[in-house]
Amino acid sequence: MAAYIAVDIGGTSMRAACYPARSHKQLKLVKIATQHPTESPYDRLVNLITRVWPSGETVAAIGAAAPGPVDPYQGIVLSAPNIPSWINLPLASLLQAHFGVPACIGNDANLAALGEWKYGAGKGHRHLVYLTISTGIGGGVIMDNHLLLGYHGLAAELGHITVEPDGPLCGCGQHGHLEALASGPSIARWVEAELSQGAVSSLSAVKPVTAKLVAEAARQGDALAACAFARAGEFIGRAVADILHMYNPSIVIIGGGVSLSGELFMKSLREEMRHHVMDAHYLDHLTVTTAALGDETGLLGALVLARGLN
Amino acid sequence: MAAYIAVDIGGTSMRAACYPARSHKQLKLVKIATQHPTESPYDRLVNLITRVWPSGETVAAIGAAAPGPVDPYQGIVLSAPNIPSWINLPLASLLQAHFGVPACIGNDANLAALGEWKYGAGKGHRHLVYLTISTGIGGGVIMDNHLLLGYHGLAAELGHITVEPDGPLCGCGQHGHLEALASGPSIARWVEAELSQGAVSSLSAVKPVTAKLVAEAARQGDALAACAFARAGEFIGRAVADILHMYNPSIVIIGGGVSLSGELFMKSLREEMRHHVMDAHYLDHLTVTTAALGDETGLLGALVLARGLN
Repeated sequence: MAAYIAVDIGGTSMRAACYPARSHKQLKLVKIATQHPTESPYDRLVNLITRVWPSGETVAAIGAAAPGPVDPYQGIVLSAPNIPSWINLPLASLLQAHFGVPACIGNDANLAALGEWKYGAGKGHRHLVYLTISTGIGGGVIMDNHLLLGYHGLAAELGHITVEPDGPLCGCGQHGHLEALASGPSIARWVEAELSQGAVSSLSAVKPVTAKLVAEAARQGDALAACAFARAGEFIGRAVADILHMYNPSIVIIGGGVSLSGELFMKSLREEMRHHVMDAHYLDHLTVTTAALGDETGLLGALVLARGLN
Repeated sequence: MAAYIAVDIGGTSMRAACYPARSHKQLKLVKIATQHPTESPYDRLVNLITRVWPSGETVAAIGAAAPGPVDPYQGIVLSAPNIPSWINLPLASLLQAHFGVPACIGNDANLAALGEWKYGAGKGHRHLVYLTISTGIGGGVIMDNHLLLGYHGLAAELGHITVEPDGPLCGCGQHGHLEALASGPSIARWVEAELSQGAVSSLSAVKPVTAKLVAEAARQGDALAACAFARAGEFIGRAVADILHMYNPSIVIIGGGVSLSGELFMKSLREEMRHHVMDAHYLDHLTVTTAALGDETGLLGALVLARGLN
């Protein structure tokens, strides 16, 4: 029985793991920094995969989660945040040629959706939406047990739902997208703007403000910090209402770094979602929850991809 | 070879047609009014189907397009505009019991998407979005050659994308949905509001203003009327940008009564769509066009459903 290799590539770190044919219990896991003074990220990736390669066993396939937009059909990384040299990189065919086994890639948020669907909070759901909220906001949608890709593989860009047409500038160049209002940096930016206008908070002396520090302050009773998360939850809830109308899932899973502070925004998220949904049928048997797999989501999604379960 | 019966039920009229096993050329078509002083809409539907039933030939299945939300899995009409007695009506099983052949139902906008995909403007596209703009705004989405239904069959309610959070009240009770800004009645309402504020137009003496009259005035050079359609096109374009991010289709088809005035709003629609899309990849090989099948869309979609092609 052949093993599978799963890889999760981020702008800061990359991880690879080896899995047996029929289980998602890692045989070996290695994590390294993506950036290196002399080695290229691609060379580091190849070395990383070599390090988890099983000895005395064949590998059936490699699955890789790449940050940023990818063409999953052609196996091409279109661009990758923090890896500026990866423009239209044919990663799947490069890995395939190097290792001599089939390789496939997917957008990290899409694969995280696959991971949560197969092994995490979404087990047993045929219609699932996954929303990852961290530095950016990404999404993955599974409909009828299939990952929704669309024509170029660019479907489910849930961070770029317009929530406030005249809202702040988004990283993509448009205004008022969910990502510009509820990502980690957006939460921190709002707090900084309020502080500069004289708002009172335990964060007054902090520079720079980060979403993590805002979460800590909120947990210690800081009203401005609590308000920042409640406000982000409202925007997410409004986007989730639109998401329900678009996809009618039975579960919405919130992942990513910001989701670790779920208790600070899930209440306002649910309230705003209920307020904005057009028909109560969408809420029938609907689960809204945080992700279950933590850091492993991307690797497990890449494993599902490698196994060709989708 | 058995024949197929397709039915398109509207609040004003209902139509049924009989098709041979392997063609979409109607053998017989009958159209009647839905409302009648003494007969119920259900009885009229049964009589209508009986009238198109082929003599001396078996029927393989009946497919029916129902207005309003349906549960396509259970074959239940949840509610139907202008047919107030149809609340949770198990239409598929009633027809199945009456006629002794399999019957299935779908939301009319979903089935119109199927019709355009199989026989109309969307032929050959695997990833299609259909938007019908008339009294209301509905949608249907085909991803990877499958109709997107979601958990309860309520996916693709594209008329209820929020375009202006503080915008006018929508029929569903929420604010600023596409339907509240770009449907036929919304176009007419905007013109009436402008007239009441003293706007100059050939429509000044007209009461009530309808979208059809606004279209005629626009074609004859009325600036206010032209502006009303251009404005609706902008809202639709903004929603289409969101639709691209959600589904990444290769074609967006605009159908429904208002689409017959496509020349009055397609330019502003395209401009606003391009302006709001987050990444030019979404526009690569993208077709945005009006529907090809006209009044037949619903019937042909019901035929596709009956044939079990989806």
